Amino acid sequence: MIKTDILIIGAGPTGLFTVFEAGLLKLKCHLIDALPQPGGQCAEIYPKKPIYDIPAFPEILAGDLVNNLMKQIEPFQPGFTLGERAETIKKQEDGSFIVTTDKGTQHQAPIVAIAGGLGSFEPRKPLIPNIEKYEDHGVEYIIRDPEFYRNKEVVIAGGGDSALDWSIFLTDIAKSVTLIHRRNEFRGALDSVEKVQELKNLGKIDVITPAEVIDIIGESNVEAVSIEKNGEVFQKKCDHFIPLFGLAPKLGPIADWGLEIEKNAIKVDNTLDYQTNIPGIYAIGDVNTYPGKLKLILCGFHEATLMCQSAYQRIFPNKRYVMKYTTVGGVEGFDGSKKEAPKAVVKAID
Amino acid sequence: MIKTDILIIGAGPTGLFTVFEAGLLKLKCHLIDALPQPGGQCAEIYPKKPIYDIPAFPEILAGDLVNNLMKQIEPFQPGFTLGERAETIKKQEDGSFIVTTDKGTQHQAPIVAIAGGLGSFEPRKPLIPNIEKYEDHGVEYIIRDPEFYRNKEVVIAGGGDSALDWSIFLTDIAKSVTLIHRRNEFRGALDSVEKVQELKNLGKIDVITPAEVIDIIGESNVEAVSIEKNGEVFQKKCDHFIPLFGLAPKLGPIADWGLEIEKNAIKVDNTLDYQTNIPGIYAIGDVNTYPGKLKLILCGFHEATLMCQSAYQRIFPNKRYVMKYTTVGGVEGFDGSKKEAPKAVVKAID
Repeated sequence: MIKTDILIIGAGPTGLFTVFEAGLLKLKCHLIDALPQPGGQCAEIYPKKPIYDIPAFPEILAGDLVNNLMKQIEPFQPGFTLGERAETIKKQEDGSFIVTTDKGTQHQAPIVAIAGGLGSFEPRKPLIPNIEKYEDHGVEYIIRDPEFYRNKEVVIAGGGDSALDWSIFLTDIAKSVTLIHRRNEFRGALDSVEKVQELKNLGKIDVITPAEVIDIIGESNVEAVSIEKNGEVFQKKCDHFIPLFGLAPKLGPIADWGLEIEKNAIKVDNTLDYQTNIPGIYAIGDVNTYPGKLKLILCGFHEATLMCQSAYQRIFPNKRYVMKYTTVGGVEGFDGSKKEAPKAVVKAID
Repeated sequence: MIKTDILIIGAGPTGLFTVFEAGLLKLKCHLIDALPQPGGQCAEIYPKKPIYDIPAFPEILAGDLVNNLMKQIEPFQPGFTLGERAETIKKQEDGSFIVTTDKGTQHQAPIVAIAGGLGSFEPRKPLIPNIEKYEDHGVEYIIRDPEFYRNKEVVIAGGGDSALDWSIFLTDIAKSVTLIHRRNEFRGALDSVEKVQELKNLGKIDVITPAEVIDIIGESNVEAVSIEKNGEVFQKKCDHFIPLFGLAPKLGPIADWGLEIEKNAIKVDNTLDYQTNIPGIYAIGDVNTYPGKLKLILCGFHEATLMCQSAYQRIFPNKRYVMKYTTVGGVEGFDGSKKEAPKAVVKAID
């Protein structure tokens, strides 16, 4: 059982910044995310895209935003349960909650902060009748660890950035890379399309278009796929079939936690602390809704900050917290680190 | 008469970021600030101090925060009335407001956003009976433009960073620099104290301690000051006397605008749009108060953003604004500039 002060569901920008604000209050955090790495959409969907409305960044790549946040929270040593989806929540007699993931990992905390964004990202799956049988047996919809594919024969399907970029990346790792798309035209960054063209010309990526994978063959693991091209069907031997058709967010199991839901978001009854209808459970960032709500990262930062103050009061009902500015008080990490403004000296001039 | 869409009182971080959010909505802004430069406290009081709780900046100097914000809002060409304090506000028949400064500059806008921080910074003045007579006639409490002191004889009083840093800076500009402090010990950055010591040793700054200026001499302009040191009084010829005893924020004339005030802050009745009891006047950032309020820069950013949406609705009651993410829609400046994510290409691989 993983125990912490604030259990954060969702490791996007809002969830990550919560660790910092909680840390200032000496509260420890643990994050759960269905994606294999922290950063939410910013890391998974558009790491190389610029964002222009993060305050004081005239421009920042989404991936850099995540990296900066990870660096900012480092002193507060957050725990992570990644690649697992929060599935059930149970309130305990002592008022704390136990959250269990789809892989059975259990977490206990007095405070749960849902920072789930638009929901957990579920892959769009191709319409291949027997595909579910091969999931985790050679069929993967998200590449969690490229090393997993070392010296393997890999077939990737898809026509967007994800399919292009992973095809490029895996040429150095996999034994062979085949890229299949139902159109001749790919849609992605110019760089990526050109790089795939180049790797194709060098014989390092086998690009098959316009074509579709229509069947998977194999005893218990993927051994080959059936490909249809221009009305003809042929088989291609492979160890892995990776359809990268995009991820769509789904609120998922959280919708069944007894929280008030409105327009696919969790209703918070006030903007005082962004608490839900279940005391002790908060909803912050894109996942919540209230009058005037804007689904912006900068709003999530504010919500996380106010939420942490309220969480502190719940955990320590009799303590009065006096806010200290970081410029004045510095930042004391749980790892023993201390950052602070250079102190003024008092010194005579003679 | 300066006309704009949103008139912002206070050019600190919250006021500056308002320009950006308003700009995304195609609303123009003009800022009024009593200080001679934008940035509020961050620029005037602690430009070289690090802030640790700006989201995605593990550490940023307050001065750099201001510079970044100025760069971010540049495409939206804000107007500035600096070194003037907003003094009166009058509602017009058409619902707009006219705000007049202490120097008589008039501004008209349908929306007023008060982002006044802790108030306008008023200098702490030394207790010298006739000092007011010489204000703007050789006595200055804030250095607005160092060039003003070229080849002048300058006496600075004070024992903190401001007195130390300006004494150092003016040695290259003024004809002579005298630094007077009532104690032998100065309190400031080690660098600054050591630099003043060095410049004293080189004869470039005349440091007189422990001493006080007790009188100002001059027909209509400052011609000399009387200095008391160890019970002895002597005169020192000079063109300027600059007491740098710190700035203290005062809510000032805004307190008389008919707004509900609570604990020296402007009450906003809701967190939907941070509007005050006078429709069309908003209060955002450290200047406002509401249940759960935290006086943090990051909260001001959020408040500014929600406020701009409400302002837009007031100005265009019949238009429905659909928010576009900057990552998707880019940023179109009023100066014709356009920033946007590189577009995906659609390209065949053959």
